[in-house]
Amino acid sequence: MTDTIRTKTELSELGEFGLIRRLTENIVLKNDSSLKGVGDDCAVLDFKNKKILVTTDLLTEGVHFNLMYVPLRHLGYKAVTVNLSDVYAMNATPRQITVSIAVSAKMSVEALDELYSGIYMACERYGVDLIGGDTTSSLTGLTISVTAIGEADECDIVYRNGAKNTDLLCVTGDLGGAFMGLQLLERENEVFKVNPKMIPQFTGYDYILERQLKPEARKDIPPLFKELGIKPTSMIDISDGLSSEILHLCTQSNVGCRLYEERLHYDNQTKKMAAELNINPLVAALNGGEDYELLFTIPVSDNDKILNHPDITIIGYITDESEGVNLMTAGAGQLIPLQAQGWNPLKKNI
Amino acid sequence: MTDTIRTKTELSELGEFGLIRRLTENIVLKNDSSLKGVGDDCAVLDFKNKKILVTTDLLTEGVHFNLMYVPLRHLGYKAVTVNLSDVYAMNATPRQITVSIAVSAKMSVEALDELYSGIYMACERYGVDLIGGDTTSSLTGLTISVTAIGEADECDIVYRNGAKNTDLLCVTGDLGGAFMGLQLLERENEVFKVNPKMIPQFTGYDYILERQLKPEARKDIPPLFKELGIKPTSMIDISDGLSSEILHLCTQSNVGCRLYEERLHYDNQTKKMAAELNINPLVAALNGGEDYELLFTIPVSDNDKILNHPDITIIGYITDESEGVNLMTAGAGQLIPLQAQGWNPLKKNI
Repeated sequence: MTDTIRTKTELSELGEFGLIRRLTENIVLKNDSSLKGVGDDCAVLDFKNKKILVTTDLLTEGVHFNLMYVPLRHLGYKAVTVNLSDVYAMNATPRQITVSIAVSAKMSVEALDELYSGIYMACERYGVDLIGGDTTSSLTGLTISVTAIGEADECDIVYRNGAKNTDLLCVTGDLGGAFMGLQLLERENEVFKVNPKMIPQFTGYDYILERQLKPEARKDIPPLFKELGIKPTSMIDISDGLSSEILHLCTQSNVGCRLYEERLHYDNQTKKMAAELNINPLVAALNGGEDYELLFTIPVSDNDKILNHPDITIIGYITDESEGVNLMTAGAGQLIPLQAQGWNPLKKNI
Repeated sequence: MTDTIRTKTELSELGEFGLIRRLTENIVLKNDSSLKGVGDDCAVLDFKNKKILVTTDLLTEGVHFNLMYVPLRHLGYKAVTVNLSDVYAMNATPRQITVSIAVSAKMSVEALDELYSGIYMACERYGVDLIGGDTTSSLTGLTISVTAIGEADECDIVYRNGAKNTDLLCVTGDLGGAFMGLQLLERENEVFKVNPKMIPQFTGYDYILERQLKPEARKDIPPLFKELGIKPTSMIDISDGLSSEILHLCTQSNVGCRLYEERLHYDNQTKKMAAELNINPLVAALNGGEDYELLFTIPVSDNDKILNHPDITIIGYITDESEGVNLMTAGAGQLIPLQAQGWNPLKKNI
């Protein structure tokens, strides 16, 4: 039995400063641009002649994550990668993050260690420095706020507003997996709530679970663009769902778009889970969100550079604004206007 | 009666993107360093040859503020100024902020307009640009996360760790006011809970109420240092209370300190409220916090430069580390070791 006993230290034993020290004492700054990290009123950075990219996300318990089935280590990892994804979506390199948390005093120090082990794992994998944050309490659940800071040469930065008529619409990786992973987790959680002795059935679904619980940001794509000699005309990461992101690109670029259902690529596990739950994987791709793949447009003249690249799929093309934003369905080949039915956090808790 | 009817729009009517548009549509970027603000995956900044300062704070309902008596407009204002205070505490100039909020769906759009009117008021007064953020929901109360970004020439930046033996310990403004303002608000709130028909008694206490509800950051101090030809050897802003901040400076600088009770300056309203509530104003100054004044050290040779300056008081001096950090009391003149009894958010909600 002894090996299963886990220490549980109350946060009040450490106090705010003790906790901050514990959570940050092993930080070693990796980037030249990180002059001064945790420990003063501000962090100090130096990007020389580079431009600076800033993005931020706020995650709240019960809305963005459910601690019933999200391990804290994965949550920490994901809180970082979803922010880094926004930096890669500008064709830039993330360098620093700040992490602020508000925790219930009921949470143990060891639980926070778990959360931070995931945060540091992401810092390690993506080469970013944790340079600051705030540690405080909440009357209720856990809240995590992450700000990511990156750098890029001005000429490399890709915005959302540069898509042009006839450009190819491309996406990295496969879609819908994170959403199907979430459906699986929620199903097993419901089963568990009815009968806590039931063992969750996750076999064969490791990929979609990881897509949901521990998503990676497409760190490999900006250097791949360099290698291929491509600069996208517009780019965005897929956090809310393909529909919503395509509409963002089109609205900001004043263009229309035609998306082809038959070009969308799903992992086998996504398809299998979708069949099991009687969900059309198209719905998962369009409206599910959290895939953290990159959606971008390139001039049609760059077609050959990406053709047959295993990580990139051409899923449609940009049209004149007057043609609207439409999905060409597989099979019957109907043209259906795309709607942003992406995740609306403000509707979730009514 | 008609003029008292207030519109109440549900957040779900606008949705996330509609709400973001409403809250950000009037932004005009003021700083040359703000190349791109709200509306893409990241904001884009350019600080040329300046160093970049980053600081962040997370405020949660019930811990940092009580919406029973804190007007939303003031809360928005304060959420910004407390962050800017950290930038001034590095002797730097804030240029941008990001603001993320998690709100209960019960909150109305008009209430958020109020919150943002305070945020924009602070942006206006301090010349900073709102360049990004995240808008989401929480299952319970309101959470606000603000990150401030500033700039400075490397040679101007003041850290916490440069205080030297014999340096003068100085503070701007007066102390303890914010804490006494909070005591007053809490007292009147208790009275109100017992009898909602009672009219709160705030007459004659406008200054300490404003210190608590709508604190200002010491924007004037970095340029004053330039004007006086001073560069502090160390500096910190007073958010947790004078004791805690002095201990930060001394610990990080490896020095001791002697603080003189009789040198501490209180506003008349602070003294009057303290007398009424039978609280020693010294306790408010040492442990109350939220004064957002600047605490700094200067070489004794700079004494003449600040002597008799109405905004700066010399409250003690730096000693060798071996002498410890002590308060010399007024009257009897006892030497008492200072302890950090500042605000501990992690103990508050046990």
